[in-house]
Amino acid sequence: MGRNVYIENKPLEEALELFTRHLTECGWLRLRHEEVDIMECLGRRTFQPVYARRSHPHYMASAMDGIAVKAVSTYAASEVNPVSLNQNQALMVDTGDYVPPEYDAVVMIEDVNMRAGQYLIIRPAVPWQHVRSVGEDMVEQDMIVPSRTLIGPYELASFKTASVERITVIKRPVVAIIPTGTELVEHGYDDMPPGEIVESNSRMLAALCEQWGGVALRHDIVVDDKELIRQAVKEVEPRADLIVICSGSSAGREDYTASIVQELGHLIVHGVATRPGKPAILGIIHRKPVIGVPGYPVSAQLIFSLFAQPILYRRSGGEMPTPETIQCQVARKLPSHAGVDEYVNVNLAKISDQYLAYPLNRGAGVTTMLVKSDGVLHIPRGNEGLEAGNSCRVALNRPRPVIENTLVCLGSHDLAIDVLIDILQKDHGTRMISTNVGSMGGIVSLSRGETHCAGLHLLDYTSGDYNTSYLKKYLRQQKVLLVNLVKRDQGLVVQKGNPLLINGVEDLVRPEVRYINRQKGAGTRLLLDYLLQKHGIDSNQINGYNREEYSHLAVAASIKNNAGDTGLAIYASARVLDLDFVPVATERYDLCILPDLFTDHQLHILLTAINSDEFKQRMRALGGYHLDQTGHIMWEGLQ
Amino acid sequence: MGRNVYIENKPLEEALELFTRHLTECGWLRLRHEEVDIMECLGRRTFQPVYARRSHPHYMASAMDGIAVKAVSTYAASEVNPVSLNQNQALMVDTGDYVPPEYDAVVMIEDVNMRAGQYLIIRPAVPWQHVRSVGEDMVEQDMIVPSRTLIGPYELASFKTASVERITVIKRPVVAIIPTGTELVEHGYDDMPPGEIVESNSRMLAALCEQWGGVALRHDIVVDDKELIRQAVKEVEPRADLIVICSGSSAGREDYTASIVQELGHLIVHGVATRPGKPAILGIIHRKPVIGVPGYPVSAQLIFSLFAQPILYRRSGGEMPTPETIQCQVARKLPSHAGVDEYVNVNLAKISDQYLAYPLNRGAGVTTMLVKSDGVLHIPRGNEGLEAGNSCRVALNRPRPVIENTLVCLGSHDLAIDVLIDILQKDHGTRMISTNVGSMGGIVSLSRGETHCAGLHLLDYTSGDYNTSYLKKYLRQQKVLLVNLVKRDQGLVVQKGNPLLINGVEDLVRPEVRYINRQKGAGTRLLLDYLLQKHGIDSNQINGYNREEYSHLAVAASIKNNAGDTGLAIYASARVLDLDFVPVATERYDLCILPDLFTDHQLHILLTAINSDEFKQRMRALGGYHLDQTGHIMWEGLQ
Repeated sequence: MGRNVYIENKPLEEALELFTRHLTECGWLRLRHEEVDIMECLGRRTFQPVYARRSHPHYMASAMDGIAVKAVSTYAASEVNPVSLNQNQALMVDTGDYVPPEYDAVVMIEDVNMRAGQYLIIRPAVPWQHVRSVGEDMVEQDMIVPSRTLIGPYELASFKTASVERITVIKRPVVAIIPTGTELVEHGYDDMPPGEIVESNSRMLAALCEQWGGVALRHDIVVDDKELIRQAVKEVEPRADLIVICSGSSAGREDYTASIVQELGHLIVHGVATRPGKPAILGIIHRKPVIGVPGYPVSAQLIFSLFAQPILYRRSGGEMPTPETIQCQVARKLPSHAGVDEYVNVNLAKISDQYLAYPLNRGAGVTTMLVKSDGVLHIPRGNEGLEAGNSCRVALNRPRPVIENTLVCLGSHDLAIDVLIDILQKDHGTRMISTNVGSMGGIVSLSRGETHCAGLHLLDYTSGDYNTSYLKKYLRQQKVLLVNLVKRDQGLVVQKGNPLLINGVEDLVRPEVRYINRQKGAGTRLLLDYLLQKHGIDSNQINGYNREEYSHLAVAASIKNNAGDTGLAIYASARVLDLDFVPVATERYDLCILPDLFTDHQLHILLTAINSDEFKQRMRALGGYHLDQTGHIMWEGLQ
Repeated sequence: MGRNVYIENKPLEEALELFTRHLTECGWLRLRHEEVDIMECLGRRTFQPVYARRSHPHYMASAMDGIAVKAVSTYAASEVNPVSLNQNQALMVDTGDYVPPEYDAVVMIEDVNMRAGQYLIIRPAVPWQHVRSVGEDMVEQDMIVPSRTLIGPYELASFKTASVERITVIKRPVVAIIPTGTELVEHGYDDMPPGEIVESNSRMLAALCEQWGGVALRHDIVVDDKELIRQAVKEVEPRADLIVICSGSSAGREDYTASIVQELGHLIVHGVATRPGKPAILGIIHRKPVIGVPGYPVSAQLIFSLFAQPILYRRSGGEMPTPETIQCQVARKLPSHAGVDEYVNVNLAKISDQYLAYPLNRGAGVTTMLVKSDGVLHIPRGNEGLEAGNSCRVALNRPRPVIENTLVCLGSHDLAIDVLIDILQKDHGTRMISTNVGSMGGIVSLSRGETHCAGLHLLDYTSGDYNTSYLKKYLRQQKVLLVNLVKRDQGLVVQKGNPLLINGVEDLVRPEVRYINRQKGAGTRLLLDYLLQKHGIDSNQINGYNREEYSHLAVAASIKNNAGDTGLAIYASARVLDLDFVPVATERYDLCILPDLFTDHQLHILLTAINSDEFKQRMRALGGYHLDQTGHIMWEGLQ
């Protein structure tokens, strides 16, 4: 149970420099080669020049459909006195046919009259007309491509034409990936017990490695047993050019990577001053690099990108692509520790000619952050982060046109937003990104012009109306369009069969009831507060009032997994997770749109999507939604 | 032997419009879908949104290595009075471990002291600290990605994490490719007789089709027999979404595609007003598009790109990439026919801040043109072409940085240039492009600043010196560096064993000797003229004086294939093709460099490559080269 050694905080630059120096010293970066059949060469790079093995054409060939003649035999021809050639003096040829040495020109079929087995020619032929000379395309021993050429469809066709059947290409480095962890399973299954996790990091790294020119060789999952992990390393080593050990790179009681590397080879670095990714390991075993990546997926991805990507590109002879960067304004404060190089995944959009970067949740365990990421913002060491509104450069993960054609929807989340996102993408080729910042967060983003639109369900305690009074108060200066998306049933989500017999908000004060609340600023939290006020309940009486989740589904999922007993959420969240539901209120969920931030086309497709039959049908199918006002304009401000 | 029907000249726009309209009408463009295992989904696009099948984590999980506690049990803790918990009140957990419902916080291991089986805690824990809530990454039924999402490493990892094992993706259209032609063989082999051609078009189209989102299904070669081709079409049709018939698309005696399409379905277009590519066929058989592409590779590539690329992208749900375009100056006159849309492949380079487009040979049979092409210049219908120096837009085939890092070498060709190209690419990552325009052509290009350097071997008849007098005459105004590359043996290349007993230029006047000359402006042609003058021979006496080839190897290859008996060329060309050689002269072959057009780095690496041991060794190995002056500066002008 002995905890491990000390982890360093090696600056990234130094770690990279040390790693590269070791690889250079042991000759690892030198390119290797292999011979392959040309039918396997697409996407590979030539190690040597490729020379034509045969001329093309390798014979005098007709360039036309026509007859091959000896030019001199046609010199007397004219329209008035055609020359007549017999079958021994001319040869009918199609394009590509052999023109034997007794002929030196081809007359196009259009210029020949056939009469009684004779060819009548009305114009003299010039020697070598319509004859493709030997090697017109390529000559035997011509260099078709030099070394380091990426082989595509045209190279392949040329090799084939030149009778080249095998070529020497740069060998792709083999990357052995060993996932370790007693908690890991290969596949999810029903009733997977708490504590088990489906292994996915090795799948991600394998796919990245193939993109970067490597060949992935995934080992089966190895449990946290030092001897078994050591055996796995020894087993893959002879076939691998790079060994990656997933997780176990920290200094916990079951983190064995560092000591295994130390025992089998040389540990270069343990701990790099990056965020995420700190507990990374770099080493060498038998002149081959070993990288120990942390278990959290975002950390694993960063460490693999920083250390494996450049060396895989080098070893496969490719040019590592430099991502396009754009100058952005960061939408919220991004504090950073001066002692680390920090990499922040962001969403990106262009609003009113300004690129905006929306930092994604920085939890290193959030796989979906990588799915959502449009770009990466690097905050170099020595820097304490950015204030909201600061300018920064972001390296793009997606083509710029996708980013420029992105609608932003920051506000309350409802399944209606997902359905809209899907319809916009599918039917209109337009991307919408959405982050759940709650209804009040949506109001703030709208007021700053940082979002095109926002989902809102803000109840006015006094009037009983939704949203309008808030917009009048906070968005007085802006042109605003408030469109209803849905009305939806809110209620208390409870375990199947409602074992605690929860029948309304008054039951929330019972001490055995573990409530799960929504984050501050969420419309649903405001709704709870309104209901508590109406029932004269003090929020301090509720066990779990301060426990926050960020979406309806998150509340429901916590209940399903017995991490709580009830929470206020929409009917659909209970239904999709097969839980029970105690209705409490029906509320309006609107989309507040800032038309000035849209192009005409964008506004048109958004309204089209909202008013589409598909949208209504899909929402209806989810249950607990009412669509009688969907698409109606509820209010217009400053029009 | 009956020749076929008339071929139309349908304007490209109309042909595209007609084709698309037919495909829309028969519902072909609608996306199809299929379910796949997620381990097969990389590079595919989702047909539907993918929803999480399990929350991640699906249990309350520790975010740290430490001990799980009930927060309330730690509230009294302080440095002075630590709280002591026993093994029943706390649970040791590693990152990711399950935190059972009896606990609601995790204390980091660094903040815990172990003493006699007790945990000593010196700071109160806040409820839910270091606990990952259920669904922190994703919640069951969350939409992980919407429809039409391209699946990469991160999506794959997310699906795996979410226990998604199968997903519905857009089905890739199957493209059946049928190569036809009696002259075609699958592989080259020794002593391949004249008239046979290795089939390569279908390989090129198959590789393109895979790039564009399709799945290629290549049929074996079918000979030119209408019934057999018809059978092949009927055989592939049930499995195919698009049928491509290679060659036979014209109106020759063995061109059956049009009539087969007409008989099995509907012929939409026969003949499109493009150059190359005119004899293209578009049709529909059983609601599936059929494209008949011409036999010449460049025509086949153009027709397939124009008609198959857009529809394959649409049917696979992808966005057809719009290539970057740049504004260029065209280096030579490009006449075009006003009646056609013409597509010209060009080389591209940037010289003195100006992008230059060098049109490649426009022969549609030249596969290597596609290998060399850096971009495509479209001359729209109604336009009669471009004059040298005109401005034009070119769509790039290669990344712009590659084009910007390109050296141009227009002039005489020698194998030394190929070796230099290879060394520059391999050791310095710099591309050099070279076109053989002869020594005099090189002088012209240098004088116009259209090339960085040029290979020259121009003999001064009076002084016996090489190159300098020409530079003094034609490049008086320019800063020039003349560097020797090699000295080389020129001579008469003859058949193995020299059957015609050719012993010198005096034998060229013998009527049975078929001479092969070089093009006008070639240094080797000037050398011949010099030798003829010296021997008092009139060029009219030489059979073949007007027959031109464009390189040493082309001359030698023609002789090897008995398309001629002798020609003046370098020793290496005879040697690599295993021919005999009658030495006639040793000449200097220099590289003339315009240093002002180079960056310091470019000039440095070029001179480094010329002076490298590798260059000398490789040249020496070719034979007939003398390297005693290699790298020497022979002359400097205006320095």
